[in-house]
Amino acid sequence: MADEPSAEDRLIARFFAPIAIHPGALGLSDDAAFITPPPGHDLVLKADAIIGGVHFFAEDAAHTVACKALRVNLSDLAAKGAKPLGFLLSLALPKDITDNWLVNFAEGLRGDSVLYACPLFGGDTDRTPGPITVSIAMFGSVPTGTMVRRAGARPGDRVFVSGSIGDATLGLALRKNSDLGADWKLSEPQRQHLIARYLLPQPRNALAEAVRMHASASMDVSDGLAGDFAKLCRTSQVGATIEAARVPLSDAAKAALAADPKMLAPALSGGDDYEIVCTVPPAKAEGFRAAAQAAKVPVSEIGEIVAGEGARFLGADGEPLAFAHVSYSHF
Amino acid sequence: MADEPSAEDRLIARFFAPIAIHPGALGLSDDAAFITPPPGHDLVLKADAIIGGVHFFAEDAAHTVACKALRVNLSDLAAKGAKPLGFLLSLALPKDITDNWLVNFAEGLRGDSVLYACPLFGGDTDRTPGPITVSIAMFGSVPTGTMVRRAGARPGDRVFVSGSIGDATLGLALRKNSDLGADWKLSEPQRQHLIARYLLPQPRNALAEAVRMHASASMDVSDGLAGDFAKLCRTSQVGATIEAARVPLSDAAKAALAADPKMLAPALSGGDDYEIVCTVPPAKAEGFRAAAQAAKVPVSEIGEIVAGEGARFLGADGEPLAFAHVSYSHF
Repeated sequence: MADEPSAEDRLIARFFAPIAIHPGALGLSDDAAFITPPPGHDLVLKADAIIGGVHFFAEDAAHTVACKALRVNLSDLAAKGAKPLGFLLSLALPKDITDNWLVNFAEGLRGDSVLYACPLFGGDTDRTPGPITVSIAMFGSVPTGTMVRRAGARPGDRVFVSGSIGDATLGLALRKNSDLGADWKLSEPQRQHLIARYLLPQPRNALAEAVRMHASASMDVSDGLAGDFAKLCRTSQVGATIEAARVPLSDAAKAALAADPKMLAPALSGGDDYEIVCTVPPAKAEGFRAAAQAAKVPVSEIGEIVAGEGARFLGADGEPLAFAHVSYSHF
Repeated sequence: MADEPSAEDRLIARFFAPIAIHPGALGLSDDAAFITPPPGHDLVLKADAIIGGVHFFAEDAAHTVACKALRVNLSDLAAKGAKPLGFLLSLALPKDITDNWLVNFAEGLRGDSVLYACPLFGGDTDRTPGPITVSIAMFGSVPTGTMVRRAGARPGDRVFVSGSIGDATLGLALRKNSDLGADWKLSEPQRQHLIARYLLPQPRNALAEAVRMHASASMDVSDGLAGDFAKLCRTSQVGATIEAARVPLSDAAKAALAADPKMLAPALSGGDDYEIVCTVPPAKAEGFRAAAQAAKVPVSEIGEIVAGEGARFLGADGEPLAFAHVSYSHF
């Protein structure tokens, strides 16, 4: 008789099947899942993985690891103007992972899958001799032909960025060297704000529809504003002039930069912001501001697209800033 | 000026962008890709990863690693009756990966993406302190509502399996202990056949439409026929009687089992066959055989679905076989 579920099947049934609530997920009891795509829509496809010791710390709480893995993908969908439909998970786990870790990881997935209306459709779970590796493939939808691309920015377009920039880079620096909190004269809430912004992205999915209706080009800011926006300009074959003083900063980041002005360049070029940078034709700028306000997402105009090439970030003296590393890269 | 591509972007542009030929992949130059789903169709979704030292040997040729990663997913789509549409790739690479490895890996992906009409849409590439980890998310299509599930088998349905079973398990044993080739009195072509069947799956996508038109339930055989078919029976809430002597074997496997009959149970319960096991109502059995023949995929009837529970594999003496491990599991 060959009718006992395998240990992998039991693990999936216990931790992941309860959160795979879409009927097309078939309770994770099949080889694959299915979904009927919304008629008149394109699918938007994205895959991004996070790896222990590379994208998160081994000691990070399991539920924040789950949320981070989802949110880095949700952020890309938001920047493309797409609404999430669901995700697939490939999870590689070292031998020493505990049931408690899995309980908390699954709870993180469950919470965000509800919060962002993005259900689990399937995936697989494997042992690895390496670190925890969480690979997410996410799919969303936009009305046919309306995915907002990196290409599309035109001279004269206004450049907008959501939320605030640099918090995660400053938070990571604080986490690596806790003395910096005192050096930067931060209050405890300011210190915690910066660290939380590194630990757990807050993707701007609430802004997706405003971006889709108004932006000529858009991308998410995950590898540093300076480098990411340079990619948008390259893909659109345009240049830009950005005033660094207009880049939105949180109170905590302002305090840190007041104490240590040389952190400005790292803040503008470090990773993990998970904000949206987009370009909006002048005639649509007011509409975009209003739609963002209705979506309760702060947006700031930081500069303008120009003909030519190169995204120039101008300092207070009107001279271009120099960045030691324009953008975070694992290679 | 912040306008130099990062090392990761250069790697993607050099190795992967040339094979991302679908217009919706945008040359891998955007945050996400898009596809207009075929009207009147469901999407079939699958994600499966392979890990160095777990699912393949570190010394395996890079192009076979790429092909295996794709084919384990293609096999699931085939069993569901789905036609491939495309895939996303999350690739985690150790520091010591060479350009030559990447050239060959990309060539493997390219070849199979053409062979199976399954283009690359996007993904990401990361450094890992662990082993090579290749996570694929694949999506296919079926006319709405027609994905063939594990549930659906009914008493009286015939049980069919494609190709031959057990080759990969015997090939893996040979690879681990080369003396077995002499013990089993294999010719060199037989030895190579078994090893190749472990190294490189040959998924039965040519059979997908025949399965979709005729099967009441279906799954791919990746973790061993005995255990996988037991899962299908559990999900369908039926039992089955399988005659082990009717399970199709290659000439090489027949030779090995003739020399060492105790390998029968491992051959029927070991992994990596990447065949399809499906159930077909009696009235459709001839149609299924004809469609399989037209698709040039051999299929064998191996038993029958019965009421009750438990998939019983009967030996030559009419007694149920006992399996030490019903199915491969990494946990």
